[in-house]
Amino acid sequence: MDITVKPPQNSENIGSFSRACQYLVSLPERMKGQIVTFALTVKKLGQEDPRRIIHAFKVGLAITIVSMFYYFQPLYNGFGVSAMWAVLTVVVIFEFTVGATLGKGLNRMIATCVAGYLGVSAHHLADLSGRTGEPILLGLFGFLVAGTMTFMRFLPKVKARYDYGFMIFILTFSLVAVSGYRDDEVMKIAHQRLSTIIIGGCIAMLICICICPVWSGAELHNLISSNIEKLGNFLEGFGGEYLPSMEGKSKEEKPFRHQYKSVLGSKSTEETMANQAAWEPSHGRFRFRHPWKQYLKIGALTRQCAYRVDVLNKYLNSNVQMPPEIQENIKEACTKLSSEMGKALKEIAMEMKKMRRTSTAKTHMIKSKAAAQELKSLLKVTSLWEKFNLLDILPAATVASVLIDIVSCVESISEGVCELASMAGFKSPDSSVGPDEQKLTEMSSETTPGPHHDHDHHIVIIKDAELGAY
Amino acid sequence: MDITVKPPQNSENIGSFSRACQYLVSLPERMKGQIVTFALTVKKLGQEDPRRIIHAFKVGLAITIVSMFYYFQPLYNGFGVSAMWAVLTVVVIFEFTVGATLGKGLNRMIATCVAGYLGVSAHHLADLSGRTGEPILLGLFGFLVAGTMTFMRFLPKVKARYDYGFMIFILTFSLVAVSGYRDDEVMKIAHQRLSTIIIGGCIAMLICICICPVWSGAELHNLISSNIEKLGNFLEGFGGEYLPSMEGKSKEEKPFRHQYKSVLGSKSTEETMANQAAWEPSHGRFRFRHPWKQYLKIGALTRQCAYRVDVLNKYLNSNVQMPPEIQENIKEACTKLSSEMGKALKEIAMEMKKMRRTSTAKTHMIKSKAAAQELKSLLKVTSLWEKFNLLDILPAATVASVLIDIVSCVESISEGVCELASMAGFKSPDSSVGPDEQKLTEMSSETTPGPHHDHDHHIVIIKDAELGAY
Repeated sequence: MDITVKPPQNSENIGSFSRACQYLVSLPERMKGQIVTFALTVKKLGQEDPRRIIHAFKVGLAITIVSMFYYFQPLYNGFGVSAMWAVLTVVVIFEFTVGATLGKGLNRMIATCVAGYLGVSAHHLADLSGRTGEPILLGLFGFLVAGTMTFMRFLPKVKARYDYGFMIFILTFSLVAVSGYRDDEVMKIAHQRLSTIIIGGCIAMLICICICPVWSGAELHNLISSNIEKLGNFLEGFGGEYLPSMEGKSKEEKPFRHQYKSVLGSKSTEETMANQAAWEPSHGRFRFRHPWKQYLKIGALTRQCAYRVDVLNKYLNSNVQMPPEIQENIKEACTKLSSEMGKALKEIAMEMKKMRRTSTAKTHMIKSKAAAQELKSLLKVTSLWEKFNLLDILPAATVASVLIDIVSCVESISEGVCELASMAGFKSPDSSVGPDEQKLTEMSSETTPGPHHDHDHHIVIIKDAELGAY
Repeated sequence: MDITVKPPQNSENIGSFSRACQYLVSLPERMKGQIVTFALTVKKLGQEDPRRIIHAFKVGLAITIVSMFYYFQPLYNGFGVSAMWAVLTVVVIFEFTVGATLGKGLNRMIATCVAGYLGVSAHHLADLSGRTGEPILLGLFGFLVAGTMTFMRFLPKVKARYDYGFMIFILTFSLVAVSGYRDDEVMKIAHQRLSTIIIGGCIAMLICICICPVWSGAELHNLISSNIEKLGNFLEGFGGEYLPSMEGKSKEEKPFRHQYKSVLGSKSTEETMANQAAWEPSHGRFRFRHPWKQYLKIGALTRQCAYRVDVLNKYLNSNVQMPPEIQENIKEACTKLSSEMGKALKEIAMEMKKMRRTSTAKTHMIKSKAAAQELKSLLKVTSLWEKFNLLDILPAATVASVLIDIVSCVESISEGVCELASMAGFKSPDSSVGPDEQKLTEMSSETTPGPHHDHDHHIVIIKDAELGAY
């Protein structure tokens, strides 16, 4: 039944031989192709963010500087082989952002210091127990410290900010206790190592801060505001895109339709950045103890909004045909609502970016709410809808419903940014007035009947800010 | 106008003194409270996942074992001070999961080896340029290697899998080049370091694998299947919860309503796990080169579904009152659709968990589609809806519409898991037949008219699996 004619063995051999030849002939060509692809990837990487090139330059510089300890006789005599630890420290702690570098550097220095002294004490303690007891006791200490500290690293707070420090603690304790058994000059070596680690750490941190620094805080600030802007772009574009596409006009995909997708998965990036930012000193418009946690709150609200936007985006893709009357009716209200919310979000993003309070976002919020009311009342007019069955108008109804939902999302983002503005002391629009006076005038014009209570309000704001800065 | 009576200065002082006293008196009490809270947190941490305690024990054990190199004379004589690197390696590479430990260990060993030899070569090259040229040339080499490698670390593929290796490369190259300038026994020291690092790495990896191993791959597998299950729980509960709550029956929050939220932000965890899993050898039911990328695809589809579920969840919270007729009409269809999808998802999750194909999920999928059709035709019956204005029935319409959307989400999850099943060779329900025969019979009964083409199909499946295993 199932007869297949086998090709002769010989021709198969010839076939595989010619394939091998082809492979070898095409090898240089393909390698060239791969090298070109690789070069293009590298070029793109540098073009996307030129600070990466600067970072590479900074690391190279830091390592060269720290190598000087070895190269030059007088410096070498001071530190000996321990100078190695300076090189090691620079390589290990130098990160792209200042926050990450400071976090790692401080963790390393403090942990080395504490663990070093504990290690020396453990060594002395073990020394008392004599020649046989010493290795057993040291082994026990090492086991206990390593076990306990490893377990502690699972604590969420430790994991977020001190994970590296705990690892270095285990490392230093083990090394000091171990080398203590061999070396009588424990204290001297411990001091040398500590000082070279501090020198290496300081060189890395100084170069990281002084040459074109990348601040985690500023990055987080920009990330959150650009996320809000992306959602704004989507909503502003949605009204124009959604309904014409139903008439079959433009089917090309606009960039705003994909931008927002990066917002959906930005949670862990934001958390990492906020943890790093907490290490950073005052820089630019950000104080030390800037309310970074509030950024996480705003980020979570933005994602909530993005989930709804993702549902909306599906309706841009679907090819459902709606009755033209419905479309005509719903078009104006939906477009207006969507574009007002888009404008509001973009204004909020701008307010964050410039760290300057505006009233424009509030105006757009009020207009959005009015548009939502309009849409709702349009949906109430029974005469419009009763001709159709619900299934035909379902896509339109869902879009309207989701858009109405998004109003509350946008409002909570707006509130979150307002809280941030008072915590972080954003400037008021009229920048000719001093910041304190501004706050007072603004407050009084907004909420209080007379100027007598201004002072109280001011205090309340400051307290909020303090609480928020955890 | 605004006269406030200031309290006398004296009483204020007394007040602050007594506050200070109160503070001191309550200090031990509060410290005790903090210690108790801390102890409870630690206890919870251990109870949540007892493998954490085992992990701590494993790290302690590995460090104790590796310290033996120092403690015992003969071993020490072999390696000298370089034995330090074994301790360092164990502390630094020992991670919770096997994948992470193997990834770091292999990265460290290979990078040390390659960079060590390159460093020695650089040292010899620099040696040729004489006493003055040597430090300049070595400094230049260090700068170039550190800069280039640091930049390479930004490449997405490198960042995901070889980041640690590139860091160790920079570290080793700098150390060897640097110490080479001082020490004439470079090669000997380089070899000693390399061998201690390999010994430390092997001890860490062996202990990690041999004592209660935690496999990233198995963790990823369980995470994805439990995420699908959580969505299934929500959907199964939703029908029962959504409509009774409108009648004002039960208002208490059920657990299923929060479980799904962890799915929304699991993207980065999944990616990390998949990268780690790629390092792991064959374990349990997972081969080396198990199609881990397919898990990421299923994870992305699951999140897509979760965004829609998040929109649904909002309707559980809202207190909108619907006309009772609508509720009666829509209740049955919605409950049926939702619970069928929930059952389908839970079956899919079970299929993944047990790695055993079932047809039950398909049955539920067919039922879900039928329920969706039923709901659609219910929405088409104009006589039901024309009495109401659209705004009143908007929540019901949106819930129906989102539920109908979810059908396609569930379907694509189901397809994703089916692909995984053929890539990874899930067992068929009738496990008495050998795996190969199973595949054949299954295939022939599903798609092919006769038994003649079985072999082709089998090949196609294997090819797919190979492609998918990247």
